[in-house]
Amino acid sequence: MSVYQIELNLRTVKKQECVDVTELIERTVTESGIVTGVCSIFVPHTTAAIIANEHFDPNVPRDIAKTLCSMVPDHGPWDHPEENAPAHVRASLLGSSLSVPVTSGELFLGQWQGIFFMEFDGPRSRNLKVTITG
Amino acid sequence: MSVYQIELNLRTVKKQECVDVTELIERTVTESGIVTGVCSIFVPHTTAAIIANEHFDPNVPRDIAKTLCSMVPDHGPWDHPEENAPAHVRASLLGSSLSVPVTSGELFLGQWQGIFFMEFDGPRSRNLKVTITG
Amino acid sequence: MSVYQIELNLRTVKKQECVDVTELIERTVTESGIVTGVCSIFVPHTTAAIIANEHFDPNVPRDIAKTLCSMVPDHGPWDHPEENAPAHVRASLLGSSLSVPVTSGELFLGQWQGIFFMEFDGPRSRNLKVTITG
Repeated sequence: MSVYQIELNLRTVKKQECVDVTELIERTVTESGIVTGVCSIFVPHTTAAIIANEHFDPNVPRDIAKTLCSMVPDHGPWDHPEENAPAHVRASLLGSSLSVPVTSGELFLGQWQGIFFMEFDGPRSRNLKVTITG
Repeated sequence: MSVYQIELNLRTVKKQECVDVTELIERTVTESGIVTGVCSIFVPHTTAAIIANEHFDPNVPRDIAKTLCSMVPDHGPWDHPEENAPAHVRASLLGSSLSVPVTSGELFLGQWQGIFFMEFDGPRSRNLKVTITG
Repeated sequence: MSVYQIELNLRTVKKQECVDVTELIERTVTESGIVTGVCSIFVPHTTAAIIANEHFDPNVPRDIAKTLCSMVPDHGPWDHPEENAPAHVRASLLGSSLSVPVTSGELFLGQWQGIFFMEFDGPRSRNLKVTITG
Protein backbone atom coordinates (compact mmCIF):
# COMPACT_ATOMS: atom_id res chain seq x y z
CA MET A 1 0.00 0.00 0.00
CA SER A 2 1.05 3.55 -0.66
CA VAL A 3 -0.10 7.14 -0.23
CA TYR A 4 0.00 9.98 -2.79
CA GLN A 5 -0.74 13.56 -1.79
CA ILE A 6 -0.94 16.71 -3.88
CA GLU A 7 -2.28 20.27 -3.70
CA LEU A 8 -4.34 21.47 -6.66
CA ASN A 9 -4.92 25.14 -7.40
CA LEU A 10 -7.95 26.76 -8.92
CA ARG A 11 -9.23 30.28 -9.41
CA THR A 12 -12.88 31.18 -9.00
CA VAL A 13 -14.21 34.15 -10.95
CA LYS A 14 -17.60 34.83 -9.37
CA LYS A 15 -19.09 35.38 -5.91
CA GLN A 16 -20.92 32.05 -6.14
CA GLU A 17 -19.63 29.42 -8.51
CA CYS A 18 -19.81 25.65 -9.09
CA VAL A 19 -16.43 24.55 -10.51
CA ASP A 20 -16.39 21.10 -12.11
CA VAL A 21 -13.11 19.58 -10.86
CA THR A 22 -13.84 16.01 -12.02
CA GLU A 23 -11.12 15.92 -14.70
CA LEU A 24 -8.58 17.56 -12.41
CA ILE A 25 -9.16 14.88 -9.75
CA GLU A 26 -9.23 12.08 -12.35
CA ARG A 27 -5.82 13.20 -13.64
CA THR A 28 -4.46 13.14 -10.09
CA VAL A 29 -5.67 9.57 -9.59
CA THR A 30 -3.93 8.51 -12.81
CA GLU A 31 -0.69 10.23 -11.71
CA SER A 32 -0.80 8.44 -8.35
CA GLY A 33 -0.55 5.03 -9.98
CA ILE A 34 -2.81 3.67 -7.24
CA VAL A 35 -5.13 0.92 -8.51
CA THR A 36 -7.57 0.23 -5.63
CA GLY A 37 -8.25 2.58 -2.75
CA VAL A 38 -9.76 5.88 -1.70
CA CYS A 39 -9.29 9.42 -3.00
CA SER A 40 -9.86 11.85 -0.13
CA ILE A 41 -10.51 15.46 -1.22
CA PHE A 42 -10.24 18.27 1.34
CA VAL A 43 -11.11 21.98 1.07
CA PRO A 44 -8.69 24.05 3.23
CA HIS A 45 -11.07 27.05 3.13
CA THR A 46 -14.01 28.12 5.29
CA THR A 47 -16.37 29.57 2.67
CA ALA A 48 -16.24 26.80 0.04
CA ALA A 49 -17.22 23.13 -0.08
CA ILE A 50 -16.80 19.91 -2.09
CA ILE A 51 -19.65 17.71 -3.35
CA ALA A 52 -20.35 14.89 -5.82
CA ASN A 53 -23.52 15.36 -7.85
CA GLU A 54 -24.75 15.40 -11.47
CA HIS A 55 -22.43 17.09 -13.97
CA PHE A 56 -24.25 16.03 -17.12
CA ASP A 57 -26.61 18.99 -16.61
CA PRO A 58 -24.67 21.91 -15.05
CA ASN A 59 -27.98 23.27 -13.76
CA VAL A 60 -27.91 20.64 -10.99
CA PRO A 61 -25.00 22.11 -8.95
CA ARG A 62 -26.45 25.58 -9.62
CA ASP A 63 -29.82 24.49 -8.17
CA ILE A 64 -27.94 23.21 -5.10
CA ALA A 65 -26.11 26.53 -4.67
CA LYS A 66 -29.32 28.55 -5.21
CA THR A 67 -31.17 26.51 -2.59
CA LEU A 68 -28.38 27.15 -0.05
CA CYS A 69 -28.42 30.86 -0.88
CA SER A 70 -32.17 31.05 -0.24
CA MET A 71 -32.15 28.75 2.85
CA VAL A 72 -29.28 30.73 4.43
CA PRO A 73 -30.13 34.40 3.91
CA ASP A 74 -27.54 37.04 2.91
CA HIS A 75 -28.54 39.35 5.74
CA GLY A 76 -28.62 37.50 9.05
CA PRO A 77 -28.71 38.60 11.86
CA TRP A 78 -25.18 37.17 11.99
CA ASP A 79 -22.73 37.34 14.89
CA HIS A 80 -19.68 37.09 12.60
CA PRO A 81 -18.97 40.75 11.77
CA GLU A 82 -18.21 40.26 8.09
CA GLU A 83 -20.47 40.12 5.12
CA ASN A 84 -19.36 36.54 4.34
CA ALA A 85 -21.07 34.99 7.40
CA PRO A 86 -23.70 33.18 5.27
CA ALA A 87 -20.91 31.77 3.04
CA HIS A 88 -19.43 29.99 6.09
CA VAL A 89 -22.81 28.46 6.93
CA ARG A 90 -23.52 27.37 3.34
CA ALA A 91 -20.09 25.71 3.11
CA SER A 92 -20.59 23.65 6.28
CA LEU A 93 -24.03 22.43 5.14
CA LEU A 94 -22.31 20.81 2.12
CA GLY A 95 -19.06 19.79 3.84
CA SER A 96 -15.27 20.19 3.60
CA SER A 97 -14.28 16.61 2.74
CA LEU A 98 -15.34 13.96 0.26
CA SER A 99 -13.99 10.41 -0.12
CA VAL A 100 -14.36 8.80 -3.55
CA PRO A 101 -13.31 5.20 -4.35
CA VAL A 102 -10.43 4.43 -6.70
CA THR A 103 -11.12 1.30 -8.78
CA SER A 104 -8.95 -0.18 -11.60
CA GLY A 105 -6.71 2.89 -11.39
CA GLU A 106 -9.59 5.30 -11.97
CA LEU A 107 -11.90 7.48 -9.93
CA PHE A 108 -15.10 5.50 -9.32
CA LEU A 109 -18.09 7.74 -10.03
CA GLY A 110 -21.68 7.01 -11.03
CA GLN A 111 -22.80 7.50 -14.63
CA TRP A 112 -24.00 11.09 -14.15
CA GLN A 113 -21.72 12.02 -11.28
CA GLY A 114 -19.05 14.71 -11.22
CA ILE A 115 -17.13 16.49 -8.44
CA PHE A 116 -17.76 20.17 -7.79
CA PHE A 117 -15.84 22.78 -5.84
CA MET A 118 -18.61 25.00 -4.47
CA GLU A 119 -17.47 28.62 -4.06
CA PHE A 120 -19.61 30.85 -1.82
CA ASP A 121 -17.28 33.84 -1.31
CA GLY A 122 -15.35 34.38 -4.54
CA PRO A 123 -13.68 35.40 -6.63
CA ARG A 124 -10.59 33.91 -4.97
CA SER A 125 -7.51 31.79 -5.52
CA ARG A 126 -8.36 28.38 -3.98
CA ASN A 127 -6.73 25.02 -3.29
CA LEU A 128 -7.76 21.42 -2.90
CA LYS A 129 -5.64 18.92 -0.97
CA VAL A 130 -6.00 15.44 -2.44
CA THR A 131 -4.73 12.30 -0.69
CA ILE A 132 -4.98 8.95 -2.45
CA THR A 133 -4.41 5.81 -0.38
CA GLY A 134 -4.45 2.25 -1.70
CA MET B 1 -1.90 -2.81 5.65
CA SER B 2 -4.39 -3.89 3.05
CA VAL B 3 -7.41 -2.65 1.11
CA TYR B 4 -10.71 -4.45 0.48
CA GLN B 5 -13.26 -3.05 -1.97
CA ILE B 6 -16.72 -4.29 -2.89
CA GLU B 7 -19.91 -3.09 -4.58
CA LEU B 8 -23.16 -3.78 -2.73
CA ASN B 9 -26.54 -3.77 -4.43
CA LEU B 10 -29.88 -2.74 -3.04
CA ARG B 11 -33.32 -2.06 -4.37
CA THR B 12 -35.48 0.80 -3.11
CA VAL B 13 -39.25 0.42 -3.38
CA LYS B 14 -40.56 3.92 -2.68
CA LYS B 15 -40.00 7.48 -3.92
CA GLN B 16 -38.44 8.44 -0.57
CA GLU B 17 -36.99 5.71 1.62
CA CYS B 18 -34.51 5.26 4.48
CA VAL B 19 -32.83 1.87 4.00
CA ASP B 20 -30.97 0.53 7.04
CA VAL B 21 -27.74 -0.88 5.58
CA THR B 22 -25.93 -1.36 8.90
CA GLU B 23 -25.90 -5.19 8.76
CA LEU B 24 -24.90 -5.19 5.09
CA ILE B 25 -21.88 -2.99 5.87
CA GLU B 26 -21.05 -4.95 9.05
CA ARG B 27 -20.95 -8.16 7.03
CA THR B 28 -18.59 -6.53 4.54
CA VAL B 29 -16.22 -5.48 7.32
CA THR B 30 -16.16 -9.07 8.63
CA GLU B 31 -15.45 -10.41 5.12
CA SER B 32 -12.57 -7.97 4.68
CA GLY B 33 -10.65 -9.49 7.60
CA ILE B 34 -9.35 -6.00 8.42
CA VAL B 35 -8.94 -5.44 12.18
CA THR B 36 -8.18 -1.71 12.58
CA GLY B 37 -8.88 0.95 9.96
CA VAL B 38 -11.55 2.89 8.13
CA CYS B 39 -14.62 1.77 6.18
CA SER B 40 -15.35 4.34 3.48
CA ILE B 41 -18.87 4.16 2.01
CA PHE B 42 -19.66 5.95 -1.26
CA VAL B 43 -22.97 6.49 -3.07
CA PRO B 44 -22.40 6.49 -6.87
CA HIS B 45 -25.76 8.19 -7.45
CA THR B 46 -26.89 11.82 -7.57
CA THR B 47 -30.30 11.61 -5.87
CA ALA B 48 -29.42 9.47 -2.83
CA ALA B 49 -27.16 9.91 0.20
CA ILE B 50 -25.50 8.04 3.09
CA ILE B 51 -25.74 8.98 6.77
CA ALA B 52 -25.12 7.56 10.25
CA ASN B 53 -27.90 8.27 12.74
CA GLU B 54 -30.21 6.50 15.19
CA HIS B 55 -31.60 3.17 13.99
CA PHE B 56 -33.14 2.09 17.31
CA ASP B 57 -36.20 4.21 16.45
CA PRO B 58 -36.77 4.14 12.65
CA ASN B 59 -38.68 7.42 12.99
CA VAL B 60 -35.36 9.25 13.31
CA PRO B 61 -34.17 8.80 9.69
CA ARG B 62 -37.76 9.47 8.56
CA ASP B 63 -37.77 12.77 10.47
CA ILE B 64 -34.50 13.65 8.70
CA ALA B 65 -35.97 12.84 5.28
CA LYS B 66 -39.20 14.74 6.03
CA THR B 67 -37.26 17.83 7.11
CA LEU B 68 -35.28 17.77 3.86
CA CYS B 69 -38.46 17.36 1.85
CA SER B 70 -40.02 20.41 3.52
CA MET B 71 -36.82 22.54 3.47
CA VAL B 72 -36.23 21.80 -0.23
CA PRO B 73 -39.64 22.14 -1.91
CA ASP B 74 -40.91 19.76 -4.60
CA HIS B 75 -41.78 22.60 -6.95
CA GLY B 76 -38.85 24.97 -7.32
CA PRO B 77 -38.38 27.12 -9.43
CA TRP B 78 -35.61 24.73 -10.55
CA ASP B 79 -33.22 25.17 -13.49
CA HIS B 80 -32.74 21.40 -13.91
CA PRO B 81 -35.57 20.48 -16.30
CA GLU B 82 -36.61 17.25 -14.58
CA GLU B 83 -38.96 16.64 -11.71
CA ASN B 84 -36.11 15.17 -9.62
CA ALA B 85 -34.28 18.50 -9.15
CA PRO B 86 -35.12 18.67 -5.41
CA ALA B 87 -33.86 15.08 -4.95
CA HIS B 88 -30.39 16.20 -6.15
CA VAL B 89 -30.37 19.07 -3.64
CA ARG B 90 -31.60 16.91 -0.73
CA ALA B 91 -28.89 14.31 -1.47
CA SER B 92 -26.06 16.87 -1.39
CA LEU B 93 -27.26 18.34 1.91
CA LEU B 94 -26.69 14.91 3.50
CA GLY B 95 -23.64 13.88 1.47
CA SER B 96 -22.31 11.12 -0.78
CA SER B 97 -19.58 9.67 1.41
CA LEU B 98 -19.24 8.49 5.00
CA SER B 99 -16.14 7.13 6.77
CA VAL B 100 -16.74 4.83 9.74
CA PRO B 101 -13.92 3.38 11.89
CA VAL B 102 -13.14 -0.35 11.95
CA THR B 103 -12.10 -1.52 15.43
CA SER B 104 -11.35 -5.11 16.59
CA GLY B 105 -12.52 -6.37 13.19
CA GLU B 106 -15.94 -4.72 13.52
CA LEU B 107 -17.66 -1.55 12.39
CA PHE B 108 -17.33 1.00 15.19
CA LEU B 109 -20.72 2.64 15.76
CA GLY B 110 -22.28 4.35 18.75
CA GLN B 111 -24.87 2.54 20.86
CA TRP B 112 -27.89 3.86 18.94
CA GLN B 113 -26.19 4.41 15.61
CA GLY B 114 -26.96 2.73 12.31
CA ILE B 115 -26.11 3.51 8.68
CA PHE B 116 -28.84 4.57 6.28
CA PHE B 117 -29.01 4.77 2.51
CA MET B 118 -31.29 7.77 1.94
CA GLU B 119 -33.29 7.44 -1.29
CA PHE B 120 -34.89 10.62 -2.66
CA ASP B 121 -35.82 9.52 -6.20
CA GLY B 122 -36.87 5.87 -6.07
CA PRO B 123 -37.89 3.24 -6.61
CA ARG B 124 -34.57 2.28 -8.22
CA SER B 125 -31.84 -0.32 -8.28
CA ARG B 126 -28.92 1.21 -6.32
CA ASN B 127 -25.32 0.46 -5.38
CA LEU B 128 -22.89 1.30 -2.62
CA LYS B 129 -19.13 1.15 -3.13
CA VAL B 130 -17.39 0.18 0.09
CA THR B 131 -13.62 0.43 0.56
CA ILE B 132 -12.02 -0.82 3.78
CA THR B 133 -8.42 0.17 4.49
CA GLY B 134 -6.40 -0.91 7.51
CA MET C 1 2.09 2.45 5.76
CA SER C 2 0.49 2.22 9.15
CA VAL C 3 -2.75 2.94 11.01
CA TYR C 4 -3.19 4.67 14.37
CA GLN C 5 -6.56 4.71 16.12
CA ILE C 6 -7.64 6.38 19.34
CA GLU C 7 -10.81 7.41 21.19
CA LEU C 8 -10.89 10.94 22.57
CA ASN C 9 -13.26 12.02 25.33
CA LEU C 10 -14.89 15.37 25.82
CA ARG C 11 -17.62 16.81 27.99
CA THR C 12 -20.14 19.32 26.71
CA VAL C 13 -21.70 21.71 29.22
CA LYS C 14 -24.60 23.25 27.31
CA LYS C 15 -27.60 22.13 25.28
CA GLN C 16 -26.02 23.52 22.11
CA GLU C 17 -22.29 24.01 21.97
CA CYS C 18 -19.43 24.36 19.45
CA VAL C 19 -16.35 22.71 20.96
CA ASP C 20 -13.04 23.59 19.29
CA VAL C 21 -11.20 20.23 19.10
CA THR C 22 -8.42 21.39 16.77
CA GLU C 23 -5.61 21.11 19.33
CA LEU C 24 -6.89 17.75 20.58
CA ILE C 25 -6.80 16.33 17.04
CA GLU C 26 -3.44 17.98 16.28
CA ARG C 27 -1.93 16.32 19.34
CA THR C 28 -3.28 12.96 18.17
CA VAL C 29 -1.65 13.39 14.76
CA THR C 30 1.70 14.14 16.43
CA GLU C 31 1.36 11.05 18.66
CA SER C 32 0.62 8.86 15.64
CA GLY C 33 4.01 9.60 14.10
CA ILE C 34 2.37 9.44 10.67
CA VAL C 35 3.93 11.90 8.20
CA THR C 36 1.67 11.83 5.12
CA GLY C 37 -1.88 10.54 5.05
CA VAL C 38 -5.44 11.12 6.21
CA CYS C 39 -6.93 11.77 9.65
CA SER C 40 -10.48 10.42 9.71
CA ILE C 41 -12.65 11.77 12.55
CA PHE C 42 -15.91 10.01 13.45
CA VAL C 43 -18.69 11.00 15.87
CA PRO C 44 -20.24 7.85 17.45
CA HIS C 45 -23.33 9.82 18.52
CA THR C 46 -26.62 10.66 16.83
CA THR C 47 -27.22 14.23 18.05
CA ALA C 48 -23.76 15.74 17.45
CA ALA C 49 -21.62 16.40 14.37
CA ILE C 50 -18.09 17.27 13.22
CA ILE C 51 -17.15 20.15 10.91
CA ALA C 52 -14.14 22.18 9.75
CA ASN C 53 -14.74 25.93 9.61
CA GLU C 54 -13.30 29.22 10.87
CA HIS C 55 -11.99 29.18 14.44
CA PHE C 56 -10.30 32.58 14.38
CA ASP C 57 -13.70 34.15 15.14
CA PRO C 58 -15.72 31.79 17.40
CA ASN C 59 -18.90 33.48 16.16
CA VAL C 60 -18.61 31.50 12.92
CA PRO C 61 -19.45 28.04 14.35
CA ARG C 62 -22.12 29.73 16.50
CA ASP C 63 -23.71 31.25 13.38
CA ILE C 64 -23.72 27.76 11.83
CA ALA C 65 -25.42 26.26 14.89
CA LYS C 66 -27.95 29.09 15.09
CA THR C 67 -28.88 28.67 11.43
CA LEU C 68 -29.49 24.95 11.97
CA CYS C 69 -31.58 25.68 15.05
CA SER C 70 -33.79 28.09 13.10
CA MET C 71 -33.94 25.94 9.91
CA VAL C 72 -34.89 22.81 11.90
CA PRO C 73 -37.51 23.95 14.43
CA ASP C 74 -37.56 22.77 18.06
CA HIS C 75 -41.22 21.76 17.85
CA GLY C 76 -41.83 19.58 14.78
CA PRO C 77 -44.24 17.85 14.21
CA TRP C 78 -41.73 15.03 14.76
CA ASP C 79 -42.38 11.28 14.59
CA HIS C 80 -39.52 10.47 17.01
CA PRO C 81 -41.25 10.63 20.41
CA GLU C 82 -38.47 12.47 22.24
CA GLU C 83 -37.72 16.13 22.54
CA ASN C 84 -34.32 15.65 20.86
CA ALA C 85 -35.77 14.85 17.41
CA PRO C 86 -34.50 18.17 15.91
CA ALA C 87 -31.00 17.48 17.33
CA HIS C 88 -30.84 14.27 15.23
CA VAL C 89 -31.79 16.21 12.09
CA ARG C 90 -29.32 19.07 12.75
CA ALA C 91 -26.50 16.56 13.29
CA SER C 92 -27.12 14.78 9.97
CA LEU C 93 -27.19 18.06 8.04
CA LEU C 94 -23.59 18.68 9.18
CA GLY C 95 -22.40 15.06 9.13
CA SER C 96 -20.79 12.38 11.32
CA SER C 97 -17.41 12.06 9.63
CA LEU C 98 -14.65 14.38 8.43
CA SER C 99 -11.38 13.47 6.69
CA VAL C 100 -8.49 15.93 7.06
CA PRO C 101 -5.09 15.51 5.34
CA VAL C 102 -1.91 14.85 7.33
CA THR C 103 1.11 16.61 5.77
CA SER C 104 4.69 16.78 7.14
CA GLY C 105 3.50 15.07 10.33
CA GLU C 106 0.85 17.72 11.00
CA LEU C 107 -2.86 18.21 10.45
CA PHE C 108 -3.28 20.13 7.19
CA LEU C 109 -5.80 22.93 7.75
CA GLY C 110 -6.37 26.26 6.02
CA GLN C 111 -5.17 29.50 7.63
CA TRP C 112 -8.47 30.24 9.43
CA GLN C 113 -9.68 26.67 9.76
CA GLY C 114 -10.36 24.73 12.95
CA ILE C 115 -12.28 21.55 13.77
CA PHE C 116 -15.47 21.74 15.79
CA PHE C 117 -17.49 19.13 17.64
CA MET C 118 -21.05 20.40 17.25
CA GLU C 119 -23.26 19.42 20.21
CA PHE C 120 -27.03 19.66 19.70
CA ASP C 121 -28.30 17.68 22.71
CA GLY C 122 -25.99 18.37 25.65
CA PRO C 123 -24.72 18.52 28.21
CA ARG C 124 -23.26 15.05 27.77
CA SER C 125 -20.09 13.02 27.96
CA ARG C 126 -18.99 12.51 24.33
CA ASN C 127 -16.33 10.68 22.32
CA LEU C 128 -14.54 11.06 19.03
CA LYS C 129 -12.95 8.10 17.26
CA VAL C 130 -9.89 9.19 15.30
CA THR C 131 -8.13 6.95 12.76
CA ILE C 132 -4.94 8.14 11.07
CA THR C 133 -3.70 6.22 8.04
CA GLY C 134 -0.54 6.97 6.11
